[in-house]
Amino acid sequence: MASPVESRRPELRKDSVTNRWVIFSPARAKRPSDFQSKSPAPSSSDPPQTCPFCIGQEHHCAPEIFRFPPQNSDWKVRVIQNLYPALSRDKDLDSSASLCSDSLVWGCLLDGYGFHDVIIESPVHSVHLSDLIPEDVAQVLLAYKKRILQLAGDDSIKYVQVFKNHGASAGASMTHSHSQMVGLPVIPPSVSTRLDSMKQYFNQTGKCSICDVPIKDLLVDESVHFISVVPYAASFPFELWIVPRDHVSHFHELDQEKAVDLGGLLKVTLMKMSLQLNKPPFNFMIHTSPLQASESDSAYSHWFLQIVPQLSGVGGFELGTGCYINPVFPEDAAKIMREVNISI
Amino acid sequence: MASPVESRRPELRKDSVTNRWVIFSPARAKRPSDFQSKSPAPSSSDPPQTCPFCIGQEHHCAPEIFRFPPQNSDWKVRVIQNLYPALSRDKDLDSSASLCSDSLVWGCLLDGYGFHDVIIESPVHSVHLSDLIPEDVAQVLLAYKKRILQLAGDDSIKYVQVFKNHGASAGASMTHSHSQMVGLPVIPPSVSTRLDSMKQYFNQTGKCSICDVPIKDLLVDESVHFISVVPYAASFPFELWIVPRDHVSHFHELDQEKAVDLGGLLKVTLMKMSLQLNKPPFNFMIHTSPLQASESDSAYSHWFLQIVPQLSGVGGFELGTGCYINPVFPEDAAKIMREVNISI
Repeated sequence: MASPVESRRPELRKDSVTNRWVIFSPARAKRPSDFQSKSPAPSSSDPPQTCPFCIGQEHHCAPEIFRFPPQNSDWKVRVIQNLYPALSRDKDLDSSASLCSDSLVWGCLLDGYGFHDVIIESPVHSVHLSDLIPEDVAQVLLAYKKRILQLAGDDSIKYVQVFKNHGASAGASMTHSHSQMVGLPVIPPSVSTRLDSMKQYFNQTGKCSICDVPIKDLLVDESVHFISVVPYAASFPFELWIVPRDHVSHFHELDQEKAVDLGGLLKVTLMKMSLQLNKPPFNFMIHTSPLQASESDSAYSHWFLQIVPQLSGVGGFELGTGCYINPVFPEDAAKIMREVNISI
Repeated sequence: MASPVESRRPELRKDSVTNRWVIFSPARAKRPSDFQSKSPAPSSSDPPQTCPFCIGQEHHCAPEIFRFPPQNSDWKVRVIQNLYPALSRDKDLDSSASLCSDSLVWGCLLDGYGFHDVIIESPVHSVHLSDLIPEDVAQVLLAYKKRILQLAGDDSIKYVQVFKNHGASAGASMTHSHSQMVGLPVIPPSVSTRLDSMKQYFNQTGKCSICDVPIKDLLVDESVHFISVVPYAASFPFELWIVPRDHVSHFHELDQEKAVDLGGLLKVTLMKMSLQLNKPPFNFMIHTSPLQASESDSAYSHWFLQIVPQLSGVGGFELGTGCYINPVFPEDAAKIMREVNISI
């Protein structure tokens, strides 16, 4: 007898935020509850002797930008420069690398000015972000905020991408718990596409698409100021969004109280994912608004945090089309994640 | 003393085809010539007893669509249904899954009708695509063409994505040499973006952006009808494009003579990549035009084949922004690939 999953037809879905077709394909799935990472990220372990992110090893690190608490050798969070930055924090005044204005040029070229920083989330090697108490997760979130506000003072920086890679196959080269942020001299393509799509929804409905995010059968958890949901057209199995209940354009408007509340929900979400999916490598990304967004843009732009467990790689179909194939229907993923039992 | 690579500043580039910013970041690179796959795809090996793609095992396969030569048990290429298709080849006449027309709906929903086929490139398990003589690679290419023409007869199918995943980390679940094609009921987002970008270039310059593809310092190899180049804003290290010299919109316009010529250049390119980069897993994708493209679209649309060796994974930065960070400047990659010495 065919299982309910097998008898379901495939569907294509697109949402009003990412505006990207996703194929939901039950024929390619095992049972949704059987999804497990085949290459779990390493658990807490003893530090290698040379981990430059560990407390006491600060002199092996790239220069520090700031720490919480300030001027305290017993720090909780440090923000440092990335030793291998994608962009150069020195402005090249002689650079001729700006050829975008000439429409007859085949390609655009910009000098690679920008910032690439690392946020060390804990002084202790064996402590992961989800091991912290909500108040300490909040310190990490408030470090993002503080650094974004510093970068916002530079007119050349248009957008700040905050992200975390956890586990080697999610792109992490260091095992000590950390996240990263890149201050970019351009608005990245996914951000433009998202904002265009949200603006279109707003123009058609008079409402913000994130305020309107569907929660029927998709809600996972709630806190005072946030909800977690599986998005209606999730690109990846067990992808989750954490969405502020209030309409807020920029992540860096987060205050202390909301940071603790978000810290708690983020901790719970990561713990659930780890338990249900066998400690998968994962990425999270904060999707916010451009630094110089106008007042009128704020009507439709609403920040959120996206968490993606790395359960399957990307192949030629995704590279070629920009469409994803997701074997797990969002409603099934939400039900499973809702029912994971953790105690904190 | 800083090496020439280290002293180079990072750059952002965007081309007129993909319209996507790429960060070229020398600080993150080893020397370009040192790039090697850390997880080479397995070489030719004895077949598992149960490989359903091997000659003589046809009865273990999903249904066949056609073979070359036809009705011949001594076949060279077989096109079969995918046993785990992303889409359903049966039309659901009762389906209510089409909610895109209502602009007040948060998401779009379409029934998952479409085709997902597999092209078995060789009857023998141990023979990879690059082991075939150019005339036999041409048979594979002409099998793509024949199947695309069949799918073009179905008005519901808007675009056909042909792709190859080679090696497990590039998404291949079978080791027997094969490629895949998906006939989609929508035009995928990357295709729309590419066509919009190429149309804009055409409107500004009166020329096709692929006919105009920069070759100075970027050309790798040439054949009678094709060239291979590293694209000016390559998203991935050692990414290569094979481009028809003549302005042609659709891959499926390929004739026998050009198929053999392309087969030879594709073989050489894959052999070079394998030798230089230590048999990397790779993907290739054929970027063509929508099936129902209009006459006026053909002025700016020009098909090409993109080859991407899988040398590094994708992390939160790429997932969040849609920008890629490439540690190898295209000019350096092209020089290295030009100088790889192979004899065929």
